[in-house]
Formats: sequence, C-alpha cells, structure tokens
Amino acid sequence: MGRTSDARQKILGAARSLIEGRGYSALGVAEICKAAGVPKGSFYYFFESKEALALAVVDEHWAAQRRDWVRVLDGEGSPLQRLRHLFEETEAGQRAVHDGCGTVSGCLFGNLALELSNQTEPIRERLQDIFDAQVEMVHAVVTEARERGDVTVTDTREAARAVVAQLEGQVMFAKLYNSPQRLTPLWDNCLALLGAR
Amino acid sequence: MGRTSDARQKILGAARSLIEGRGYSALGVAEICKAAGVPKGSFYYFFESKEALALAVVDEHWAAQRRDWVRVLDGEGSPLQRLRHLFEETEAGQRAVHDGCGTVSGCLFGNLALELSNQTEPIRERLQDIFDAQVEMVHAVVTEARERGDVTVTDTREAARAVVAQLEGQVMFAKLYNSPQRLTPLWDNCLALLGAR
Repeated sequence: MGRTSDARQKILGAARSLIEGRGYSALGVAEICKAAGVPKGSFYYFFESKEALALAVVDEHWAAQRRDWVRVLDGEGSPLQRLRHLFEETEAGQRAVHDGCGTVSGCLFGNLALELSNQTEPIRERLQDIFDAQVEMVHAVVTEARERGDVTVTDTREAARAVVAQLEGQVMFAKLYNSPQRLTPLWDNCLALLGAR
Repeated sequence: MGRTSDARQKILGAARSLIEGRGYSALGVAEICKAAGVPKGSFYYFFESKEALALAVVDEHWAAQRRDWVRVLDGEGSPLQRLRHLFEETEAGQRAVHDGCGTVSGCLFGNLALELSNQTEPIRERLQDIFDAQVEMVHAVVTEARERGDVTVTDTREAARAVVAQLEGQVMFAKLYNSPQRLTPLWDNCLALLGAR
C-alpha cells in the first residue's frame, strides 16, 4: 500500500513539474511516467486519463495554496496588512523558484486558464471555482478594510476581482520577463485599486 | 507569384486560428497545412520551422493591433478619453469574436507568454518587445494626462505597466469565464490605478 500511494505521488509530482515547465497539451502519458520513474501501465491504475491527472495536479496545488492564503488572510494584523502579506509571500514564492532553477514559473492556474480554458470544460470549471474562491477570500478582507474606513472603494467585489486580475497580470509579466522584481509594485497598485486612504 | 503569397497567407491564417484555439505546443506542421489547404511540402518553402511560423503569426497580429492602438491613442479627444476608447475597442473586439464563434479567444500575446516564454527564447523576446511597446504607448498618454493634471500618479511608467497588466489579467478572466462582460470594469480600474481626479 505504501508503494502504491508513493507511485501516485511520483506521477503527480512529475506531472506538476512538467506542466509548469512546458504546459499540458504537449505532454504525453509515457513522458510523465518516465519522469516519475513508474511503469506506464500503472498510470491508468491511478488516473482515468491525462485530463484526470491535470485535475488532480490542480487540486493538490490549490489545497496547498489555499492553506497559505487562509493562514495569511485570517492571520494577525489589520486587513490591509494581511493583504500586503499575501502579495509579499507571492513574490517571495516566485523569487524562490527563480533563485532555485533560474526561471519564474508563474501561476499554474493562470497558465492553464490561458492554455486550456477553451479546450476542456472540466478544467475550465475547476479553475473558475479556484479563482472564485480567491476573489471571495480577497473580498472578505476588502469588506473588513472598508468597514474600518481604510479603503474607499464602493463595489468591494469588483475591487477584489481587479486585485486578483492585477496579480495574474503582473505574474504574467514576471514570467515573460523572467523577473520576480516585476511583482514589487503589486502592493501600490492594489492600494490604488482599493482607493486606500 | 500571386499563388505563392496566397499559400503563405493561408498557412499564416490557419496557424493563427489554430494557435488561438489550442495553443502552439500541441500543433503539428501537417495539421496546420491541412487546415490551410496547402501541401505539407510547401510549408518549409515559406517557413524555416514551426517557431518561425509562430513568430510570423505574432508579427502579423501585432502589426494590425499596433495600427489600431496608434489610431486610437493618437486620435481625437483628451488623453483619458483616448485611453478609454482603447479599452472599449478591446472589449468590443473580444465581444465580436465571442458573438461569432461562442468563445472569448483572449489575447494571443498573453496566451503565448504563459504557454511559451520559458520554452523558446526568440518568442519570449518578441513578446517582450510587444509588451514594452504597449507600455510605452500607454505611458505617453499617461504622461500627457499627468501634464494636464488629469491624473495624480507619480511613477507614470509603473502606472502604465499596471494598466497593461490589469488589461491582461481581466482578459484572462474574460477567457476563463467565457464572458466579454468581464472587461467592462476595466476603465474604472484604470482610473483608480492612475489616480484620476
């Protein structure tokens, strides 16, 4: 049993790393299994299809990222301090990958949204759920900031969407220019979008 | 000669449409030629490689988009009116594609930036040049708006970058949610990012 779940984790880990590096479409099951060091025959024991594997990769990544977001956004400090902390952690995460392997890998969800959302409905729906959840989490903090009079924005939900869109847009440029520093202005942009006092 | 350039245009048109629908990595030369209705042998008469074709698709698309941006941003009206006009045209363009084929295709440059920037340096560099040019064009208008006292932002270049990032982020969500309406809040977000009076 230990070895079985180990093989599943190896496939998931290899798939995530390959998807981050080269996208989903160009990958084949044989290549994923080779990178994972598991026999190709075992793939379909764990995953019904390549699409099912991609969904599992997305779910595992979101489970980890969601924990981080909850920890930061439900943590100590004023609402704006917590939101700032989220951006700082995002920048630090992209910087750590860049320092380790020389490239900014960007946002797995944003990458797959642009690569796949017009191709597979199950992946599109899963990514919609994830970005809905991100907007909801930011929205809760923005609402709290507004109640305290820290921000002046009136449509708090639209402002939360704009903040998440700004994050995705700047992460795109951090990846394109292979420069984690591109994320540094995020906080000032976020304050502007929220009409911070 | 007429037929020769016709075949090149057919390949370019088919490639652009396939790349918009399914990305670059998953495409093969044979498939592109089949969609273009030209013999596979003729492909390498026009293009050295699939990468060379992708660069030609990007160049052709940017030449057309650049003309549109110049027309709008150098056109009539105050700086902010022209910038608003650019966003309205962008939304109208995404809406027209959506009305025609049922899907928001998003931004070809943003799509390729996330799919390819860590895989092919020539495409990365070309996309960097394009986004640099977009930021430069927005920057000129923001500078003009600042000189008139219409916006309060101090770092006009960083603000121009934030505006282009907001555009890419919101276009990502328009594609993911297959909803051109997602672009409607762009203008208010832009005003906030610029500190418009």
